[in-house]
Order: sequence, then structure tokens, then C-alpha cells
Amino acid sequence: MHATLLKGESAQAYACGFSCDNGLLLQTPAQAFFITDGRYVTDAKAKVTASTEVIDGGRELVATARKIVRRLGITSLALDPLEWNISAYETLLKGLHVRVKPKSNLSQKSRIIKAPQELLLLQSAVQKGAEAFDAFVAFVREYGVGLSEKTLHYEASRILTCKGALGLSFSPIVAINANAAKPHATPQETVLAAGDLLLLDAGIIAQGYCSDRTRTFEVGPHATAGKTQTFTCKTRQKVYDTVLKAQEAAIALARPGVRACAVDKAAREVIDAAGYGAYFVHSTGHGVGLDIHELPVISASSQSVLEEGMVFTVEPGIYLPGEFGVRIEDMVVVQASGVEVL
Amino acid sequence: MHATLLKGESAQAYACGFSCDNGLLLQTPAQAFFITDGRYVTDAKAKVTASTEVIDGGRELVATARKIVRRLGITSLALDPLEWNISAYETLLKGLHVRVKPKSNLSQKSRIIKAPQELLLLQSAVQKGAEAFDAFVAFVREYGVGLSEKTLHYEASRILTCKGALGLSFSPIVAINANAAKPHATPQETVLAAGDLLLLDAGIIAQGYCSDRTRTFEVGPHATAGKTQTFTCKTRQKVYDTVLKAQEAAIALARPGVRACAVDKAAREVIDAAGYGAYFVHSTGHGVGLDIHELPVISASSQSVLEEGMVFTVEPGIYLPGEFGVRIEDMVVVQASGVEVL
Repeated sequence: MHATLLKGESAQAYACGFSCDNGLLLQTPAQAFFITDGRYVTDAKAKVTASTEVIDGGRELVATARKIVRRLGITSLALDPLEWNISAYETLLKGLHVRVKPKSNLSQKSRIIKAPQELLLLQSAVQKGAEAFDAFVAFVREYGVGLSEKTLHYEASRILTCKGALGLSFSPIVAINANAAKPHATPQETVLAAGDLLLLDAGIIAQGYCSDRTRTFEVGPHATAGKTQTFTCKTRQKVYDTVLKAQEAAIALARPGVRACAVDKAAREVIDAAGYGAYFVHSTGHGVGLDIHELPVISASSQSVLEEGMVFTVEPGIYLPGEFGVRIEDMVVVQASGVEVL
Repeated sequence: MHATLLKGESAQAYACGFSCDNGLLLQTPAQAFFITDGRYVTDAKAKVTASTEVIDGGRELVATARKIVRRLGITSLALDPLEWNISAYETLLKGLHVRVKPKSNLSQKSRIIKAPQELLLLQSAVQKGAEAFDAFVAFVREYGVGLSEKTLHYEASRILTCKGALGLSFSPIVAINANAAKPHATPQETVLAAGDLLLLDAGIIAQGYCSDRTRTFEVGPHATAGKTQTFTCKTRQKVYDTVLKAQEAAIALARPGVRACAVDKAAREVIDAAGYGAYFVHSTGHGVGLDIHELPVISASSQSVLEEGMVFTVEPGIYLPGEFGVRIEDMVVVQASGVEVL
């Protein structure tokens, strides 16, 4: 008999309706076993799908999974080699006669095409995230000048989570001027002044699904979270307009049948042509769903072919070290004849 | 030549002064290489120790590490098998002639005895965490009744981080009555009422070091974050007093030369004797430092022998499913003749 053993939290949530930071999900054609420890048993029993049995594996989750595999006479076992560290893998296979089928990104591949219900949840998450961006920029207009990046980071988190009612997809990136030249900047003590460039990259989690968005703007009484932005500094304006053009080019090209690398190339060519090619130091985008980083990868080397129902970010950027950085990011869903910006 | 390859964030921060979520640190007796991608290069260069060279490995960090290992003629390579997934490990060793020395918890073992400077940082983190507990309980006395667990969770986060100035060791556990019977409860819509049992398990990160603490108390005008607690319900009082006695027994026993399992046993015996043995469903404690969970493990099976300078939690609990749960947790440091509660 064949079985699948899932270790990742989102993989388990997708497959059985529950997950926690210490669980294993073993699925056979007939049944499923959610193996966890005493801390999570009560919650798991209340939330797993009807066909799933919850098992308290104590401190020996992997050994418990091995025993069930042996007891059921499972002969072939699919697992994701990215999820298993060398130690746990050795423990799992100790004395076990089973054919392992390593399948990288096993669960993410099964989740790459979003179901209609998932698209509604993603759209709702993006909508809530967008509202938070508007609210954050309004806060910055009113109170932002004089606050540190750390305080602005806190206020962004407060606004994004609606005071804790929603989760965060990741710790927001709030970066002023030169700090925005670090694509994954962490908040510092730098204080915001009028006329500064401010970058916000953030997302929320609503009903399990993530949103992700980036806006870059000049701080002043007319600041907005829109994509049309005006900068006093001509270099900043040129860089901004280049990034926006790059994003538009990638979005215009994306549709079913197109390779992800072509989408990346469309953005990269615009930035190359403007002379900033060396300063676009990351890939153009990534899938989003239950996890903030899912498939497909939208990079120069990604051979994935776009299909209807895929959801990913388009987020080119230009980063001038010591000066400033610009990134513009939206999530899109692939539809029959193109992509729709969520 | 021998080298060590570190993959974990805290391992890298401890060894070279910087870390990020996509880095590898290769250390030889003479030099060190911090391999990361374009997003983190600027930050890394500014922060790594003087003897460390920062290398942009793009999307191929592991392959870059392999090339350096080959170029330097390294013949033996220590790594932590818990840090390496099967895929990355195969990529690392592809065509490489090197003797791998797997060392589980390699970095955590090197960090198990805290240096005097680290103890000061831990003490300071614990102090800040304790002040936040007092402030949270004061908030609950004044405004808590009528708020949901989710809102209380948000307010706890706000108070613990001093509005974002400090980090969180982990997402705080704020649990009312029956939800407190889940050792790792997530916040729900349940609304707090006077007379409820409220459990707060939380910690902060200050200058890289974590704090961890749990208090359980009855909500009312006289609620405190202290360890002496009064409950109207006699069962709750009995359970609370049992947990406190268990914690005191474990703390009294701990000293250099004692095995961690004996500390666990001291707590467990008190709870067993009171008839609640089946409801103490986790181990007694864990080390704390740069990570919230470090060595030593304080469990029934842990053969670790305590040494001066070790820092760990003592956190027995009793969990009555559907009713309520009690946990009391403090951090202690092992000293010459016993342990001091931080």
C-alpha cells in the first residue's frame, strides 16, 4: 500500500484541516493519522477532518509514524525531502522496509492551482491588506514625521493586524531612504522626515490565506498608497517610474502557457534598458497562498508554465546601496486570457 | 583542513555577529565566509566580525559553499544534521570529497554555558519581561473584563514589545479557563469575565536574548503577576498550589552535577502525589538563550548534567481538558551551589 507523510504546517492544514508546530500527517488511500504531542491533542481532535485519527506520539512523533507505517504494511512512502532533516529521516527509516519516493515541494505542487473558494479567501486577504496600506499612509501623513523606523514598524503591525484580529504574513518591512536599498531591511532607529522616501512591504493572514504588497512613496501631506507616485528628487522619480514600467510589463505578458522566466525577463528588460540592471538583485515574484512563499517561482531560471488559477506576486525593485530603494508589489491571479491584479 | 558549516540563524549570530534567514557560515581555523544573497549583502558586510568575508551566493548558497570547500582543500566538515534537509545535503556533497562529521545541536552545545556578558543580557531580558507581566496584569485589572482572548493577545504583545521597541520570543499565549488547558493555546473569541482564570506565557527579545515566563491568575481587582495566587474555586486553588510546589521542588533540587531528568522528576513527583500525574503532559523545562528553545532539555529522559552557567526554564503545569490549566514558569541560572531564579 502507498502512503504520504507530510511534515509542513501548511501541507497538513491543507490536507486535514489542522496543523501545529509539532505534527506529522500520514495519509493512506483509506485513512489518515495526525500524530502530535500532548500540547496539541485537544485542539487537533476538535479540528481535523472526520477521516483523520489523532494520535499522541509524545516526544517520539517520527518513531510513532514509523510504527504505524509498519503496522499498516505500507510498502511505498512519498515525502518531501525539503521537509526532512537528515536526523529525522534516519529515525523514520530505522529498520523499516519501505520504498521512499522523495517529491520536492509535494504539498506546494498540489496547492499551486487555487480553487475558487481559495481565490475568494485570497482576494479578501488582499483587500484587507490594501485597506491597511491606506490606513498606514494616512497615519504617516498625520503622525509619521519624527517617528523612528522601529515605531513605524510597530504602528504598521498594529494597523495591519487590526489590533491583533488578523495575523501577519511576515514581519513588515518599513524602510526609510538608504534602508530601503536593503530588500529585506530590518527597522532601525532612523527617524522619518518630510520628503523622505518610505517603503512598506507587508501582508496579513485572514482565514489562513496570506496577502503581500509593497508600496514606495515620498513622505508629505499628499502621500498615498497608490501606484502613481511623485518624488521631488528626479533620480528617485526616474527609478520609481522604471520599476512601475517593469511591473506593468511583467503583468502585461503573464497569461496561461507563458513560462515564469519570461515574466521575470519582461520586468528585467525594462530595468536593464534604464541602466539599473545590476540593482535588481532578486527575482520578480513568488506564489502566495497558505504560505507567503509558494510556487510558482517567478525568476530568470524558472521553467514553470503559468496556468489558470495560479496566484503570485509581481515585485520588481531597484536598490541603490547607501542611497535608496524602490519596490512595487502586487498579487495577481492567472485567468483565461491574462492576469488580474488582486 | 577541518571546517564547520553552520546553517541556523542563532548559530551564525553567535559565531560571526550577524545572521539572516538565508545564510551559510563556513568557518576554517584561519577564516570565515558568510554566504548570503543580494538582499542581505549590505547589512552583512556592515555587521559581521572582522575575520569574516561576505559572499553573494545568489540563489545558489549551498553550491557556493561547496565550491569554497573544494577551493580551500577542506577534508573534513562538521555540520548539524538537524539543520540540513535531505535535498540541501545532497546538493552540498555533490561530487565533493570530504569527510562529513554530523554533530547534532553543534551550535547549541557550544552555547549551553552562558558567558558572564550573556548572563547580564539574559537577566536584563527577564527583567524587561517581568515588568511587562506587571503592566499586562494592571491592564487586565483596569480594562480586561469584556475583551476577547484575541484582543488580550494583541494588548499583551503591545505591552511586551513596548510598542515595537523589543521583539517577542514567541507569540504570547493568552488563555482563559478551558483554553488554558491547552499548553500551546491559540487566542480565540472567548470574552474575559471577572473571576476567570487567565494564563499568560510570554517572553521578549532584548539585544538578541530571549526571556520566557508564565503566570496563571484569577481575574479581579486584586490580580497580580506574582507567584502567590488566590482562587475562589477550591479545585483551581489545589491545582495551582500543586504546580507551585512542583516548581519549588524542581528549583530546590537543581545544582551543578544533578541530571536534568532528576529535576524533571522532582516536579513530576509532586504532581503525581496530588493525583494529577496524567495531566502534566509536557517536560519540565528547556534552555533559553539566543533561541527560545535551547539546551539543556529538562525532561524525564534527559541525561544532561547541570553545570554552572546553564540557563533554563522550570515550568510544570496541570491541564484539565475542558476545564482549565495552570502553568508557572521562571527562568533559572545554575550557580555554584544551586540555581538562582532570574
